[in-house]
Amino acid sequence: MAEKGILLIVSGFSGAGKGTITKAICNKYDNYALSVSATTRAPREMEKNGVDYFFLMKEEFEDMIRVDALIEFASYQENYYGTPKEYVLKNLAEGKDVILEIEVQGALKVHEKYPDTPMIFVTAPSAKVLAERLRGRGTESEEKVQGRLRRAVEESEFMDAYDYILVNDKLDDAVEALHRIVRTEHIKANRNSRLIAEIKSDLKQYVNG
Amino acid sequence: MAEKGILLIVSGFSGAGKGTITKAICNKYDNYALSVSATTRAPREMEKNGVDYFFLMKEEFEDMIRVDALIEFASYQENYYGTPKEYVLKNLAEGKDVILEIEVQGALKVHEKYPDTPMIFVTAPSAKVLAERLRGRGTESEEKVQGRLRRAVEESEFMDAYDYILVNDKLDDAVEALHRIVRTEHIKANRNSRLIAEIKSDLKQYVNG
Repeated sequence: MAEKGILLIVSGFSGAGKGTITKAICNKYDNYALSVSATTRAPREMEKNGVDYFFLMKEEFEDMIRVDALIEFASYQENYYGTPKEYVLKNLAEGKDVILEIEVQGALKVHEKYPDTPMIFVTAPSAKVLAERLRGRGTESEEKVQGRLRRAVEESEFMDAYDYILVNDKLDDAVEALHRIVRTEHIKANRNSRLIAEIKSDLKQYVNG
Repeated sequence: MAEKGILLIVSGFSGAGKGTITKAICNKYDNYALSVSATTRAPREMEKNGVDYFFLMKEEFEDMIRVDALIEFASYQENYYGTPKEYVLKNLAEGKDVILEIEVQGALKVHEKYPDTPMIFVTAPSAKVLAERLRGRGTESEEKVQGRLRRAVEESEFMDAYDYILVNDKLDDAVEALHRIVRTEHIKANRNSRLIAEIKSDLKQYVNG
């Protein structure tokens, strides 16, 4: 049953752990590829080009827009962010399940272009746990943490647009839940029209042959 | 996260193993209840009332139709077959995932009434394997086997109406695939509107409190 990979969208509140989950699932299972976004913002300490982001010049990014090389893009605080198409399509064709870790607005744009794409929203079990995780990072001021929480309130308004709600309580449980979603999506009838056609024709041949 | 159980429809070709799968999943996991159909046909050897079917008199069955006590019913070769509502609703309310093992026409009727019900179609890996399994039972004449295969050809026309295609190659793999479907259905956003509402209000309170 050699079939094409599935594109999937993973969004969620800052601090909910979506980055940790998507990295962990890629390490644990061979079938995944994590899409790398492009951006014009400057790399932060520790960030690597081609791993965390493709860091581009403004002109390079605008060239990609011009030749339709991005699945979606947006600008945020005077910088561009986007999803390069080539990596995604290449990996899907090779049978990889490609994860787009992407914020809510971008997710909705991708879903408009690719309606079959399952959308997964990652949340912490409660606001209190979310805030604890943000503060536990120890890298951000209380003001920034408050800003992220206010943004979570806004993003929560879009949760109903998603297909699945993934409550990240324990990391490994969340990874397994995501893996179950993907394996289950693979046996959906609408992704298996070729298999269905083969079974129909196989049965007819067998009965009439 | 105490939530209501899910009703699920399992259909498939005779010989594909749907009965074996549904019995095995109920034995392996506590969260399932297998709906028992009612019929007016006579019990076969080894069949037990309340286990294989509820065996009813024609008048009893027609009473159930009259008081709307059946989710669906049909008549086939001068006998009634149907799904009693009470057992299903009681188990769903107790949080059980209730499996309706039901043929294609009944499945479509149930799905019309309960559109959220995931529909799973079980098939053997090939017509050859299906025929081998039917013959391997050793209980049926070649004529009956041919009849079942012709029926499979007819039923295959409805596979596209199902949500999931479950290829039953190895029993335990098929049981696990069905269990994954159910666990994944449980975290669908449209089954978790209460959870989403709680997260929204929790975040708002936390930020504003």
